Amino acid sequence: MVFKKITLIGTSPESFDDAADDAIERAERTLDNLMWVEVDELGVEIASVENREYQAEVTVAFELEE
Amino acid sequence: MVFKKITLIGTSPESFDDAADDAIERAERTLDNLMWVEVDELGVEIASVENREYQAEVTVAFELEE
Amino acid sequence: MVFKKITLIGTSPESFDDAADDAIERAERTLDNLMWVEVDELGVEIASVENREYQAEVTVAFELEE
Amino acid sequence: MVFKKITLIGTSPESFDDAADDAIERAERTLDNLMWVEVDELGVEIASVENREYQAEVTVAFELEE
Amino acid sequence: MVFKKITLIGTSPESFDDAADDAIERAERTLDNLMWVEVDELGVEIASVENREYQAEVTVAFELEE
Amino acid sequence: MVFKKITLIGTSPESFDDAADDAIERAERTLDNLMWVEVDELGVEIASVENREYQAEVTVAFELEE
Amino acid sequence: MVFKKITLIGTSPESFDDAADDAIERAERTLDNLMWVEVDELGVEIASVENREYQAEVTVAFELEE
Amino acid sequence: MVFKKITLIGTSPESFDDAADDAIERAERTLDNLMWVEVDELGVEIASVENREYQAEVTVAFELEE
Amino acid sequence: MVFKKITLIGTSPESFDDAADDAIERAERTLDNLMWVEVDELGVEIASVENREYQAEVTVAFELEE
Amino acid sequence: MVFKKITLIGTSPESFDDAADDAIERAERTLDNLMWVEVDELGVEIASVENREYQAEVTVAFELEE
Amino acid sequence: MVFKKITLIGTSPESFDDAADDAIERAERTLDNLMWVEVDELGVEIASVENREYQAEVTVAFELEE
Amino acid sequence: MVFKKITLIGTSPESFDDAADDAIERAERTLDNLMWVEVDELGVEIASVENREYQAEVTVAFELEE
Repeated sequence: MVFKKITLIGTSPESFDDAADDAIERAERTLDNLMWVEVDELGVEIASVENREYQAEVTVAFELEE
Repeated sequence: MVFKKITLIGTSPESFDDAADDAIERAERTLDNLMWVEVDELGVEIASVENREYQAEVTVAFELEE
Repeated sequence: MVFKKITLIGTSPESFDDAADDAIERAERTLDNLMWVEVDELGVEIASVENREYQAEVTVAFELEE
Repeated sequence: MVFKKITLIGTSPESFDDAADDAIERAERTLDNLMWVEVDELGVEIASVENREYQAEVTVAFELEE
Repeated sequence: MVFKKITLIGTSPESFDDAADDAIERAERTLDNLMWVEVDELGVEIASVENREYQAEVTVAFELEE
Repeated sequence: MVFKKITLIGTSPESFDDAADDAIERAERTLDNLMWVEVDELGVEIASVENREYQAEVTVAFELEE
Repeated sequence: MVFKKITLIGTSPESFDDAADDAIERAERTLDNLMWVEVDELGVEIASVENREYQAEVTVAFELEE
Repeated sequence: MVFKKITLIGTSPESFDDAADDAIERAERTLDNLMWVEVDELGVEIASVENREYQAEVTVAFELEE
Repeated sequence: MVFKKITLIGTSPESFDDAADDAIERAERTLDNLMWVEVDELGVEIASVENREYQAEVTVAFELEE
Repeated sequence: MVFKKITLIGTSPESFDDAADDAIERAERTLDNLMWVEVDELGVEIASVENREYQAEVTVAFELEE
Repeated sequence: MVFKKITLIGTSPESFDDAADDAIERAERTLDNLMWVEVDELGVEIASVENREYQAEVTVAFELEE
Repeated sequence: MVFKKITLIGTSPESFDDAADDAIERAERTLDNLMWVEVDELGVEIASVENREYQAEVTVAFELEE
């Protein structure tokens, strides 16, 4: 059994929780056998968006198929 | 005056805030003289639970009695 | 173009999101050209407040005027 | 010449060495031009397995084809 | 559900694997509901022992009873 | 032979050395077989004390009885 | 909007700047919507090359398509 | 004698060296008694600029007047 | 309530304690509402001074006025 | 009593334990009064060797003679 | 002009300041052109000494002769 | 086969690349079997030099003779 880890950054105009969920939902749509998620960093983009954009960088671990 | 620090991981099906509160409430039920809490890590367990389980690892500082 | 970074700690009786927003709003009132925000640390003060005080230490980047 | 790095977690019921080898063998089956491997973390899963499951998180570097 | 983490250092005259197992076995004898183990540091004591003493510092996570 | 590590914060109105000693003395009163101490962080509390309160966070390692 | 991050190591016989550019150009040829690049580590390989080979390990962030 | 440290991010369309110099020159125009500079991070902005914008985050130490 | 953090380096020909106090005293002369101080780094300058110059880099947190 | 620390990387075709022992044995042949060893990093070289070469970077502490 | 850095651990039965001085004095007796010293870690040995032995691990930078 | 690592700081009035090369060239003049170099830190000295002195702290790995 081997797991792989990839790093995604989810975004939300509302909250850090929603930004993390955004990345997790993306992972769930494209990866099977999701195992767990680690939050690496939280941040807020201000200059290039209309309002605040909450961002959550997460590392997603999933099991590789044999 | 001497403080001690212990590390707990709270969980919640809802949010990181609730997961941190879960750990803090546990600490409040069993420890006197709670001083402050540091959030060490945030994560989400997916594989072994029905839905997402938000997790917050926190370090709790409390004053030791003389 | 040169950016400067400063470190603020916002507080809230409600949540980490509100604590981060508290620091960002303070920065927006006193600084022009806010660019982005990095969350450095989350914590909860318990001993010196009536209830829990959620705290978010953030680093705020803004563009310096020529 | 450009290298790429990916992160895998190998597992073994026996030892950390076997867990690292497990990840390296998986990489060798699916990647050409493996260059080197860095061990990021060692751990042991206990709750969800029959016995101890030794785990080795490794970062694998391989050369990209032109 | 709340987990607690404690830090132990196991020792062995033979290998790092045995040193980690030494700490895990001690945890299993005195704690219920062991969940997982993280290896924090590996080292070797030389001066105060007859031969080499392999040491593994591990953090052990276990579930607290309600 | 297994060691355990715990984290204490000693305090002193005088100096960092005294703050570290304060934590070590507390450990010596309540733990047998103290082995060594690592200084994790030094700080000074100002707002909630009459004068400066020097603080030394230390990790104390002691041998567990069989 | 979700971003993904991957880690590349560019190389150059000339300079660290060229090594970073080497990795960025590779990313630009194979990825759309490149957003930003973080330099993780700089190094120089000597033993296995004729002269010095400057290396720049970079993490590249790009926007995932919906 | 007391020093103060501030954090600036210089930018350049050309190189990391120029980006660091950009921040140092800004510091020299507005601060007296500059002592030394530490490079904290190097990066490249791609999405919001015409070409690549090299960035160097630096911490600048200067002596405070009595 | 929002706090701000700044970084100072105090110096002393005598000791690390005096170097930290030097920075704290400077902060107390120019800032109101000092809250706490974290010691970031200790060092000793030798080459450019007559004797040893003990240095303490500290981060000072103070409350911003509304 | 003053200790000195040096950093060695041992290698082995067999295991991380052997790689660490390789470095420790080298230290024992050339240094007196070896005190303890810290494992800094584990890795595996693949490209430039026939098979896998396990590597253990260790820091060795020894007492200096008066 | 090239500097070299080495790592020493000074010891003292009295204080961390004395332990750091112990390492610096050793460096001054055997090295020319000492430039500066960084404190890496502070600790206290208890088990193998009669009383407490304060330890200061320092990195010493000195200028190499041409 | 055992490697040793030492830490040097090269300097240059021109650029970080030249400062790193300065340290590497010094290592090449005095050490055989140089293997690779890691850049630890970049900085700029301003106060004690006529102009800017770019500095690159590098760790150099070389193979020890049997």
